[in-house]
Amino acid sequence: MKNRIDKIIKAMHKGNLDAIAVIAGPNMAYLTGGDFFLMERPTVLIFSKNKKPVAILPSLEVDSFLSLNFDSEIIDWKDSEGYLSAFVKAGKIIGNIDKIGVEGQRMRVFEFNAMKHGFPNTEVIDAHNDIASIRLCKDQDEINNLKKAVTISEESLKEVLKSVKEGITESELAEMLIIEQYNRGAQGIAVHPLVLIGENSALPHGHAGSRKLKAGDSLLFDFGCIYNGYISDFTRTFFYKEVSDSNKDMYEIVEEANKIGRNLVKVGTSLHEIDDTVTKFLEESPYKKFIGHRTGHGLGMEVHEDPSVVRGNHLKLQEGMVITIEPGLYDKGNVGIRIEDNVVVTKEGHESMTILPRELIVL
Amino acid sequence: MKNRIDKIIKAMHKGNLDAIAVIAGPNMAYLTGGDFFLMERPTVLIFSKNKKPVAILPSLEVDSFLSLNFDSEIIDWKDSEGYLSAFVKAGKIIGNIDKIGVEGQRMRVFEFNAMKHGFPNTEVIDAHNDIASIRLCKDQDEINNLKKAVTISEESLKEVLKSVKEGITESELAEMLIIEQYNRGAQGIAVHPLVLIGENSALPHGHAGSRKLKAGDSLLFDFGCIYNGYISDFTRTFFYKEVSDSNKDMYEIVEEANKIGRNLVKVGTSLHEIDDTVTKFLEESPYKKFIGHRTGHGLGMEVHEDPSVVRGNHLKLQEGMVITIEPGLYDKGNVGIRIEDNVVVTKEGHESMTILPRELIVL
Repeated sequence: MKNRIDKIIKAMHKGNLDAIAVIAGPNMAYLTGGDFFLMERPTVLIFSKNKKPVAILPSLEVDSFLSLNFDSEIIDWKDSEGYLSAFVKAGKIIGNIDKIGVEGQRMRVFEFNAMKHGFPNTEVIDAHNDIASIRLCKDQDEINNLKKAVTISEESLKEVLKSVKEGITESELAEMLIIEQYNRGAQGIAVHPLVLIGENSALPHGHAGSRKLKAGDSLLFDFGCIYNGYISDFTRTFFYKEVSDSNKDMYEIVEEANKIGRNLVKVGTSLHEIDDTVTKFLEESPYKKFIGHRTGHGLGMEVHEDPSVVRGNHLKLQEGMVITIEPGLYDKGNVGIRIEDNVVVTKEGHESMTILPRELIVL
Repeated sequence: MKNRIDKIIKAMHKGNLDAIAVIAGPNMAYLTGGDFFLMERPTVLIFSKNKKPVAILPSLEVDSFLSLNFDSEIIDWKDSEGYLSAFVKAGKIIGNIDKIGVEGQRMRVFEFNAMKHGFPNTEVIDAHNDIASIRLCKDQDEINNLKKAVTISEESLKEVLKSVKEGITESELAEMLIIEQYNRGAQGIAVHPLVLIGENSALPHGHAGSRKLKAGDSLLFDFGCIYNGYISDFTRTFFYKEVSDSNKDMYEIVEEANKIGRNLVKVGTSLHEIDDTVTKFLEESPYKKFIGHRTGHGLGMEVHEDPSVVRGNHLKLQEGMVITIEPGLYDKGNVGIRIEDNVVVTKEGHESMTILPRELIVL
């Protein structure tokens, strides 16, 4: 953990911040090893340049926090007293400072207001980029956890494909995927599996429902699992019994876009360059109007985390970054096709942790 | 949905607000029927007094949103363009207003900042209480969904109890509970089951791990499932093979506290009165120092929602409110005991949706 605390201190210096506050969630887990509930009870850990970290904890979490042996000053608050005075105490301990950075994509408004209440003379700002930087590059343990999550998910999909038959529903397949993953050691499911048939697959974030499978349908699986806090998230699209020439052509464009994206992944390439090259390829295909989203996102302790694989993001890839490459085409009312891989940047170039075939498979 | 839109308009008047903004999550689902992802892409629906609702949507969610047939003005934004200009457009459509209320316990800082960017002359405030009021009283459909979720969870626990044996681990039992619930129709798991043995049960929010069951251990199950978007959340504590006299005594105090709490549930009783009576009973027992938390919380589309069953909350129960009654005692390093029911306020008094026995059971 020492190395990780150094990272948060470095982020503070980089962002010209006097302190950084993180709430229950992946950053707190990354820095302390503790997995706390993110609900209506503020659970906040404040790092500052010259003081020991200060933990604001609901009293019922104190014993769990103590078991982490994390060197910090604890301020607990009781349900019947409320949390505001705990923030005031934290402000007094840390003293007058100019600027505190918070996780803008995670901290909620009521916690933000409590921070401002506890630090009335301090600017409290969204420091998402600086804070997210601490988890951008994964170490070998993290990569091993991601690989294990990917393997559980891929093996589960192979098993579930054996049950694909005329009339089976999206929900039935989604439930099978969940159970198969738990049976193989998954410790959780981050997002309910997207199992989408035919016209439903044209919704990038559709939900598995009662649609039944029939010949000629596309069958899209976008899912993953959690292993030791790390998350897999990949997509394969199949066709059932037959595939039209136009769907085959569209599939091959997505397959090629996925390949172009993966092949660009290496140290020094910018995220912009990947999304721009992949998107240009799709824009120059006959399917320009079916483009639905950026090429991908970072992956780790969250399903979507930094870095975003999007035009305009000029951050350059470094060894240990993990991103998805997931071009898709969506023909509303008809069909959607997406092929998503989980790719880690290596010294030599990249490795796709997902290894299931990407070529067109008619089940 | 008309009735629900009326509720949000009423909340606006009650809170002296000109508009209310909700993000992806339970309130948006309650008001539109749409279940959207809460990640790094802002998805915001703004209700105002005189204009049609305005939906700020990532472009990849537009088709899903349109399928809801929800009458609104849609402003979509593309990944490569970012979301800020969409908030500016929303601000122009809604025009100059004084005060917008947001979900303070849900909206994140970056969305809050985007709201302030789009409405530079408007006060954007945490209106949690006003907004949460719309879901306080459940209708019969909602209660039926909750009852179904409770039944799935209770039947699953009965099945899992058959597998309890010397040496089984918390994680193994937790996984069984998940699978049994999916097999019985659960559509998701809101929180990984807390299955806690012996000294681990003394952590109110402990995590299931590798602790093995042996004679004399307590065995606490706190878990639930999602059915049609509604969540069960209940706790039973057992002992394995034998129970010490002191643990038996402590158990009976918790059992009595649970009964006292349930019996107070009826229209007109305040949440304060319930928590105060239950907590006083525990304070006057020999176990005062083992009290860990308030008596309970609201339950519905979130595991914890309003109303909080806590001293100082003088809100009075109304028909259709659903709360947990979950007194607990926690003897650090030794044992924790909690008995949690899911209780709905009825015209006649109350009904506990959870019906599994509460008396001491030695497995």
